[in-house]
Amino acid sequence: MIRTAILGASGYVGGELLRLIAAHPELRATRLFGDSKAGQPVGKVHPHLAGALPGAAIERFEEAALEDVDLVFAALPHGHSQRLAATILKKDIPFVDLGADFRLDDSATYERWYGHAHEAPALLGSFVYGIPELNRDAIRSAKAVAAAGCYATAAILPMKPLLDADLVDPTSIIVNAASGVSGAGREAKEATGFSTVDGSFSAYGLLNHRHTAEMEMALGATVLFTPHLVPMTRGILATCYATAVGPCDPLQALSNAYADEPFVHVTDAPPATKWVSGSNGVQLTARYDERTGRLLVISAIDNLGKGAAGQMIQCANLMLGIDESAGLTTIGVYP
Amino acid sequence: MIRTAILGASGYVGGELLRLIAAHPELRATRLFGDSKAGQPVGKVHPHLAGALPGAAIERFEEAALEDVDLVFAALPHGHSQRLAATILKKDIPFVDLGADFRLDDSATYERWYGHAHEAPALLGSFVYGIPELNRDAIRSAKAVAAAGCYATAAILPMKPLLDADLVDPTSIIVNAASGVSGAGREAKEATGFSTVDGSFSAYGLLNHRHTAEMEMALGATVLFTPHLVPMTRGILATCYATAVGPCDPLQALSNAYADEPFVHVTDAPPATKWVSGSNGVQLTARYDERTGRLLVISAIDNLGKGAAGQMIQCANLMLGIDESAGLTTIGVYP
Amino acid sequence: MIRTAILGASGYVGGELLRLIAAHPELRATRLFGDSKAGQPVGKVHPHLAGALPGAAIERFEEAALEDVDLVFAALPHGHSQRLAATILKKDIPFVDLGADFRLDDSATYERWYGHAHEAPALLGSFVYGIPELNRDAIRSAKAVAAAGCYATAAILPMKPLLDADLVDPTSIIVNAASGVSGAGREAKEATGFSTVDGSFSAYGLLNHRHTAEMEMALGATVLFTPHLVPMTRGILATCYATAVGPCDPLQALSNAYADEPFVHVTDAPPATKWVSGSNGVQLTARYDERTGRLLVISAIDNLGKGAAGQMIQCANLMLGIDESAGLTTIGVYP
Amino acid sequence: MIRTAILGASGYVGGELLRLIAAHPELRATRLFGDSKAGQPVGKVHPHLAGALPGAAIERFEEAALEDVDLVFAALPHGHSQRLAATILKKDIPFVDLGADFRLDDSATYERWYGHAHEAPALLGSFVYGIPELNRDAIRSAKAVAAAGCYATAAILPMKPLLDADLVDPTSIIVNAASGVSGAGREAKEATGFSTVDGSFSAYGLLNHRHTAEMEMALGATVLFTPHLVPMTRGILATCYATAVGPCDPLQALSNAYADEPFVHVTDAPPATKWVSGSNGVQLTARYDERTGRLLVISAIDNLGKGAAGQMIQCANLMLGIDESAGLTTIGVYP
Repeated sequence: MIRTAILGASGYVGGELLRLIAAHPELRATRLFGDSKAGQPVGKVHPHLAGALPGAAIERFEEAALEDVDLVFAALPHGHSQRLAATILKKDIPFVDLGADFRLDDSATYERWYGHAHEAPALLGSFVYGIPELNRDAIRSAKAVAAAGCYATAAILPMKPLLDADLVDPTSIIVNAASGVSGAGREAKEATGFSTVDGSFSAYGLLNHRHTAEMEMALGATVLFTPHLVPMTRGILATCYATAVGPCDPLQALSNAYADEPFVHVTDAPPATKWVSGSNGVQLTARYDERTGRLLVISAIDNLGKGAAGQMIQCANLMLGIDESAGLTTIGVYP
Repeated sequence: MIRTAILGASGYVGGELLRLIAAHPELRATRLFGDSKAGQPVGKVHPHLAGALPGAAIERFEEAALEDVDLVFAALPHGHSQRLAATILKKDIPFVDLGADFRLDDSATYERWYGHAHEAPALLGSFVYGIPELNRDAIRSAKAVAAAGCYATAAILPMKPLLDADLVDPTSIIVNAASGVSGAGREAKEATGFSTVDGSFSAYGLLNHRHTAEMEMALGATVLFTPHLVPMTRGILATCYATAVGPCDPLQALSNAYADEPFVHVTDAPPATKWVSGSNGVQLTARYDERTGRLLVISAIDNLGKGAAGQMIQCANLMLGIDESAGLTTIGVYP
Repeated sequence: MIRTAILGASGYVGGELLRLIAAHPELRATRLFGDSKAGQPVGKVHPHLAGALPGAAIERFEEAALEDVDLVFAALPHGHSQRLAATILKKDIPFVDLGADFRLDDSATYERWYGHAHEAPALLGSFVYGIPELNRDAIRSAKAVAAAGCYATAAILPMKPLLDADLVDPTSIIVNAASGVSGAGREAKEATGFSTVDGSFSAYGLLNHRHTAEMEMALGATVLFTPHLVPMTRGILATCYATAVGPCDPLQALSNAYADEPFVHVTDAPPATKWVSGSNGVQLTARYDERTGRLLVISAIDNLGKGAAGQMIQCANLMLGIDESAGLTTIGVYP
Repeated sequence: MIRTAILGASGYVGGELLRLIAAHPELRATRLFGDSKAGQPVGKVHPHLAGALPGAAIERFEEAALEDVDLVFAALPHGHSQRLAATILKKDIPFVDLGADFRLDDSATYERWYGHAHEAPALLGSFVYGIPELNRDAIRSAKAVAAAGCYATAAILPMKPLLDADLVDPTSIIVNAASGVSGAGREAKEATGFSTVDGSFSAYGLLNHRHTAEMEMALGATVLFTPHLVPMTRGILATCYATAVGPCDPLQALSNAYADEPFVHVTDAPPATKWVSGSNGVQLTARYDERTGRLLVISAIDNLGKGAAGQMIQCANLMLGIDESAGLTTIGVYP
């Protein structure tokens, strides 16, 4: 049994990690850290776990607790990982971080998009960017992984093979994506209140959403990214546009690229987010538009699954040398 | 490996059975029958299964196919089981039916509530009513189980122990329940269209919903039942009222009754349907109101989980003599 | 033109008042008070009004401002009206308050349900309870009206005529009601966050919701009331149960009682909340259940319409001696 | 009083026309045609109108009925207007059609996008394309108006002034739009069922949605258009991209273009569809992205309001020479 600690166990990603770990054949969640709800029973913080984890409680983080675990998952508010990373790294146990803190590979880019200097720039090189379909081998041998952001995962997976195959102009990429509300986290805000979001659809973060930096780094391309908020809880759909270098068959290119991937399904039908809700699955489609000479490329993921907790566990499985699919599924909870 | 056939594999319950069986350690879904979508790939009918069951297809039912299976699940439109039951029963393999056809124990009651004569009254006695928490031993030794209806399960589980303990007047029971839209099945209807249901809440089936008959049979009581339609896909909440025989502690009574049940969680907090969404879990609470001398008793289930496919698998596990919890969880997909 | 001040102009009821007043032939909203958002343009606080009220802003309340208005609407957080009422009443202008502060007619009942002593018990007698269909004449001649609560309106309108006609046992009333999330107000809370509520249905305030007191006062009966939260923004459905004195025709009784009411529609079809969404309409139905000897009575309103801002304007119209229906409609925004 | 006939009175646009006409100072809905629901009371077909139009009924269309009306609104399934137009036009009364039949100005383009020959090509020239902000004078003097499609309106309004001002490359336009489900009409389909759409977001009509033709005609530009389905009932958000000719201030350009328009509000804040839900309002914003040299332009409308019934009434007001805003509002029903 592999004992894991979860930092940020009281948030939505923390809750999803607990749900997935409960069904994982090898992992156990042994320490659940969450400062804001320390002392509360898990069943109160995560009512879906009330029956399954009757005795467990959220506790305040303390460094000594890391002595008892074999792997650390972190799903903390932005900036916390920068302050904790050194502590965790020196324990020399695998560390999977979902924060944006260590995803970028240079501190100047970080500062440009995040608006402040990085607090631990020397550690940026210690982290591997975590999308197994991109860099599986690097993750396998990494001690620390910065799991990709939800929007970034949704955009990179469909666009990367097309760029690698030189099918598209790398200066022409537009990512128009839409997310369910859980992507905004658990903190109560008027912007994510039910009465605000229900029956409404809107864009936000115009021109300057921070995930743009990840997309540009991973794709080696310029990206104009516009996120939108959908009145649903889970799911991201990324609708991507790029100028084609020439006539091509992007669906075939994606099928070839992902033929052996356990979590990626390439389909002719435009995928819906609910098809992968609750899962680690990705569904992709693509079209070449001969009228305009552009590619239209679409991906659907669960922002809490492949966009967060699922991807973290997939990375952990690789780092631990166990079956990459352990505890994960491509099957969404549908309808 | 236990080979199962699913009759009605193209509906919502069929899809949920396929999802649950895919994660079940012993069951395999080997024959998928669904006349209206015969010939279509499973991934087209159930897009959440597109990646997991790439080669499977829905086929037209034929009796000979039952030779190759070890257990039959049926989730057919009302009335179909009456015509098929004899065929299946004579195969002498375990049969778990979700239809309402064989839930009642006498044909006169059936005729009163369903408005027409039963087509196979002689077989009514061959079926055990399927709620494991009520009659586990009978299910274990049964050849055929008529799994309970979703509303009935939600009402019976919280009320049965209180009636058994003589805490309430059996002529006083009101079940005010509300269901997600998937309970109405997959067929396209204006009443279940998105634009009709979104942003709306309403009652239906006033005074005469057919699940009343099951509730009265299983509880040995008179029930006034009012179903409502909630703008959500999954979940049933049953809010039940009964006149108390005297001051009592119904929460303790439920805790006692269900202390050893793996899927029932009794909680002081009023449960929400999303806490058990996607699972086989049940969450219950109760109050005694000294102002009015009444009990208020509430249960939450997933209508497709404990109210349908989950319960069917739980019954099948019992009939097969394997772990009752195999392939099932109490953990909802939350948020 | 009748100049009105709105206290609490930045909340949901304040916004709905502004929307309704913009279409009212006689009223004008001249002073918009809202301390927490004082200084902000109306179009920022209420984005639906951005085009219609381009120059208006929310301002901090000051007593002197009341000199310039002909009527005061208040939709303040609980308890504020108790502290402001004396100030407003001495101006001798019509005052329509939506707070619960002055709805009950004795301070002991107030204290029992609200858990603290009333701060201005001497003023309780100055307010008329505001449901025009119940006490139109008293409202017409009142200086101050305490408009009824949303749940209370939904329960009282269908049950009052049946009690008045001695059709039901007044000790037997159960009100099982469900509300859209806007009823919980605009303040950000995890309980009303989109991810919490979407796809979920639950009860709350078990046994002790404060609107029970209003229902009991207005109906002269004992009420067991259970509120529920529906994943929708607007609307209340009250499903009410009572023991019948004998066989009766409650639908006819309601039709007779409300034959001349402009906002109440009695219908054989179980009403849905969306049918009256955005309006001041009420739709009612009822059944006598001969099996159990009970009545089933259902009402649908918009909690922000007939349950709040619409009713406030209906009361104001009466107090001002203008057409009771001015600026109001029964037509919901559907679908 | 202006007597109007509605062809297609039983659909969602028909219901919205009835709602708006009920509050219109000059129009009256005197004949309500709808073949599929002929004979049914309006209150059964449109339950939100049950209280307001107690005696009205849907009737089967007959040509003679047009003798009694002063204006015809048509909101019929695609293709019906082609067969009826000659009949209506010869009556010489104003005709506002929402069908796509007469929006395009040449039959070859029609055939290319709609896949079949136009049945009344000689009449194409008799219709003016109906977006008052584009061609108000032509509408004023027209006998027949083909009101623009919902997606087209949402795309044309924000992009037209930028193209007219030569700010963008007309070969570079991408319209990524998302609609509420009512845009798919009232007919029951699995694709628009609640359980399909709830909690899900998807694209459809990839590369070939028919509204593309209108956008290209009205804008004089090439458009790549991708529609999406949002789990909400009403609203369209169009997120548009175009390559800028050079650095520019598109927000100012839109503000200048629409300074005097009663229904268009240009705002710095990214608009949400709910801000205009139930209204004839349009909210627009725009950005110039200096990183990529592109414009990002966003519009929000109600597909049943400015995208259908509202725009039809706005056109009718112009044709009738009455106040263009009569019976219309920019104020959404919010929240």
